[in-house]
Amino acid sequence: MNGAEALIRSLLASGVDTCFTNPGTSEMHFVAALDRIEGMRCVLALFEGVVTGAADGYGRMKDRPASTLLHLGPGLGNGLANLHNARRAYSPIVNVVGEHATWHQQYDPPLASPIEQIAGANSRWVRTAASVKTVGADAAAAVAASLDAPGGSATLVLPADIAWTQGAEVAGPVAVRARRKVDESRVRAAADALRKGQGALVLNGPMLRAAPLELCGRIAAKTGAELLCPTQINRAERGAGRVAIDRIPYVVELAQKRLAGIRSMVLINSRQPVNFFAYPGKPSLPMAEGCDVVVLAELDEDGADAAARLADLLDARRAAPKLEPLARPPLPSGPITLPGLAAVIAALMPERAIVSDESITSGRGLVAATKNAPPHDWLVNPGGSIGFAMPVAIGAALACPDRKVLCLQSDGAGMYTVQALWTMARESLDIVTLVFANRAYEILKGELKNVGAGEPGRKARDMLEIGRPDIDWVALAKGQGVPASRVEDLDGLARELRAALGERGPRLIEIRM
Amino acid sequence: MNGAEALIRSLLASGVDTCFTNPGTSEMHFVAALDRIEGMRCVLALFEGVVTGAADGYGRMKDRPASTLLHLGPGLGNGLANLHNARRAYSPIVNVVGEHATWHQQYDPPLASPIEQIAGANSRWVRTAASVKTVGADAAAAVAASLDAPGGSATLVLPADIAWTQGAEVAGPVAVRARRKVDESRVRAAADALRKGQGALVLNGPMLRAAPLELCGRIAAKTGAELLCPTQINRAERGAGRVAIDRIPYVVELAQKRLAGIRSMVLINSRQPVNFFAYPGKPSLPMAEGCDVVVLAELDEDGADAAARLADLLDARRAAPKLEPLARPPLPSGPITLPGLAAVIAALMPERAIVSDESITSGRGLVAATKNAPPHDWLVNPGGSIGFAMPVAIGAALACPDRKVLCLQSDGAGMYTVQALWTMARESLDIVTLVFANRAYEILKGELKNVGAGEPGRKARDMLEIGRPDIDWVALAKGQGVPASRVEDLDGLARELRAALGERGPRLIEIRM
Repeated sequence: MNGAEALIRSLLASGVDTCFTNPGTSEMHFVAALDRIEGMRCVLALFEGVVTGAADGYGRMKDRPASTLLHLGPGLGNGLANLHNARRAYSPIVNVVGEHATWHQQYDPPLASPIEQIAGANSRWVRTAASVKTVGADAAAAVAASLDAPGGSATLVLPADIAWTQGAEVAGPVAVRARRKVDESRVRAAADALRKGQGALVLNGPMLRAAPLELCGRIAAKTGAELLCPTQINRAERGAGRVAIDRIPYVVELAQKRLAGIRSMVLINSRQPVNFFAYPGKPSLPMAEGCDVVVLAELDEDGADAAARLADLLDARRAAPKLEPLARPPLPSGPITLPGLAAVIAALMPERAIVSDESITSGRGLVAATKNAPPHDWLVNPGGSIGFAMPVAIGAALACPDRKVLCLQSDGAGMYTVQALWTMARESLDIVTLVFANRAYEILKGELKNVGAGEPGRKARDMLEIGRPDIDWVALAKGQGVPASRVEDLDGLARELRAALGERGPRLIEIRM
Repeated sequence: MNGAEALIRSLLASGVDTCFTNPGTSEMHFVAALDRIEGMRCVLALFEGVVTGAADGYGRMKDRPASTLLHLGPGLGNGLANLHNARRAYSPIVNVVGEHATWHQQYDPPLASPIEQIAGANSRWVRTAASVKTVGADAAAAVAASLDAPGGSATLVLPADIAWTQGAEVAGPVAVRARRKVDESRVRAAADALRKGQGALVLNGPMLRAAPLELCGRIAAKTGAELLCPTQINRAERGAGRVAIDRIPYVVELAQKRLAGIRSMVLINSRQPVNFFAYPGKPSLPMAEGCDVVVLAELDEDGADAAARLADLLDARRAAPKLEPLARPPLPSGPITLPGLAAVIAALMPERAIVSDESITSGRGLVAATKNAPPHDWLVNPGGSIGFAMPVAIGAALACPDRKVLCLQSDGAGMYTVQALWTMARESLDIVTLVFANRAYEILKGELKNVGAGEPGRKARDMLEIGRPDIDWVALAKGQGVPASRVEDLDGLARELRAALGERGPRLIEIRM
């Protein structure tokens, strides 16, 4: 058995059965081995930003890694932005990056570059396979490293000669460390903080799943604490029947206002809230001055257990959490408005939908509007590097083939990984993509003012607007095999969205704003 | 004056007047300053791979850097693959990468990442601006560093607060070091090597421009040496009236055959030839065993001066170089074939055309077919990371607005930076793009065999073919504002190419293979 085959069989033995890829020459033995091995689903993307974003979406929905197969340093580089987002989402991913044959590296061939250095920017675990004897074990170690709480990217660099040499061995799975339990003193400190009043539980990561969230809802009900999550979350199980929780707004002034009344903040698997950017004369943190920040559980600790013990200590187990009721808005009509868009989506989104949200300015109001929709999952971009939503939708659709994926895509960000549409078509993925075509990096117009740079003149505006020429999203979708249509009012959107949701397979709707 | 303004004015003072960008919040003061400053042309791209590729093409044609403006680590990451290619082309580029405000970095905000580490993969010079007082001088130093022979990327990281703080100063240009002259002993050694017979001059970089090439042609004529260049070149001035020079083939067996008779190789501004990839049982270098490799001039040395001294020593100044005659092939007719494609292009390409060539397998035969076309420049990808040709064409068109750019684009590589079409349309660039639509990573089918992995089965083939669904390049082009048409035979190609060359502005022709 050669190294490539042992690597794939070891990934399978550790439960990794999906590989997103755009391979090259140095990865050909991996590709060839696919023909000899049952069980590894290999998904081609036309650009590596799609590959890594898809792996992020898959990891979030499965809580298990997919693998990626990337072509040397440049292939990894192309995937770096969505690996950055995945790092901030703590998504488990196993990257396999091909490298030149060991004896060829001394000649610094054209595609050579410092792969480990590039990978180190976003990977928590980086290793170059050193021998065909151990490459199977490397793969198993990578899977375990990706799952080590809170989760992240593990990158295995695979020299071509190790892939093609015989004598490799399959490795069984490596045990993943259990999350550490927190010290009792931390539980008591959190209880003390909440007993003072004007408290908040700030949740992230696994705490935003339905069961731990419900537990925190009981603590909130008992203590009067608020339930909050940062702007940057990974995956939230939300909607009707789930506990109400507020996301801290992106805009600094709104975040400050939201947090003004909070005197103590208990973090469970969440970092402290921090503003996305610095602005002249504004603080970096949105909390009120003097707000006490208590860490109940670090990101890698067992937040659910800590919350359970906190609930016990506070005698909150039987308090009734505030659950969101089911309430669909009526379908609106007339010209496109942001509240109107939000209402159409809230009125029509199906139960168990997975929402991949990169709607940015066009989506303001969407989170609030959909909280009473049927239960669903909401995936957002905690890393801030655009080009996120369509690739993540691909991964989510492959992880959960029985669920409808709704991809909310701003046009500027969408162009970053527009090649994702082709993979949606090739794999017949059940994804409805709404493109909010406002023909601008609208958020940057606000940011230009926020940083104190004044009103943009012609030259600055040219860098913020993406009209001239207008992008025809229907053409871009159809050109890659995805059926598409354009709507210019809410009635059209309701009609097209209802039709798209009623069928299986990829669809795109361009919303002219 | 704030730091952003001083930076732009210092770039202008050092002769940098073009900026390719996709900016974000941390770059808003740079963008705002554009309105107050005359002379900096700022070109928006919808993805940073287009930004950095355009800067590569611009640097190759101008022998001066453009600047890029990139949004933090992820923006730099998106541009990394084409910076890799630019590194292998030794193209001068000044990258300005925005960073969080200095005081904000301690909170590890969502977009934070190790920018210097990422930049270090491809930049020869990396600096983070430390003070508003010195940011102008940093910019001037970056320009000089990018031009220091043989040329490369200089990356200046710009914290947002340094951009927006007042008290900055404009810096004048920093002198660029002259290329070192080579030792006389090296000239004598090269002469001795050539006198033995069965010699070759291997040229790259500045030696592929018309004048030094002609000089080397005289040396070749006098000594019987062959003129060769590696597979990986940067920019060649070639065509009718220029000295004939042979490019070493990409395919290992063909390269070995081509070099079989060479007993001594004199390198002038060229690295020794190396195979792109290693293959089981094949050597890394294509030269015959025992071939003597003599370095006349290292990459950063004055190759033209060394060649002149070598010519003097060999009394070759008056030898007649072998010049390519002007000879257009007749226009072929009938179904698409590779020789037919090459003949149509050779028959129609205009004088002084700039060819950005990423035709890969579809372009085999093109280089030979066009050597007797009117004089032109040929740009190829010496780094091997695909998604090169359309961005490089953009930079070349902006550097040389009076010349027609012909972009030869394979379909698989073209999808990597398909967003380039939009910038061609917005800037009305005079670029004719031919897309060779064979719906496959055709080269990888050969590579799969070359690495000894046998014939691909269904699953492997799925990773090598990009049909199902077929990509409609006419739709992708029109959807981004570029007029486009499709041809299915050589007659159609001749008709459409002639029409496109007869007009100004971007055009795309999809060639169904």
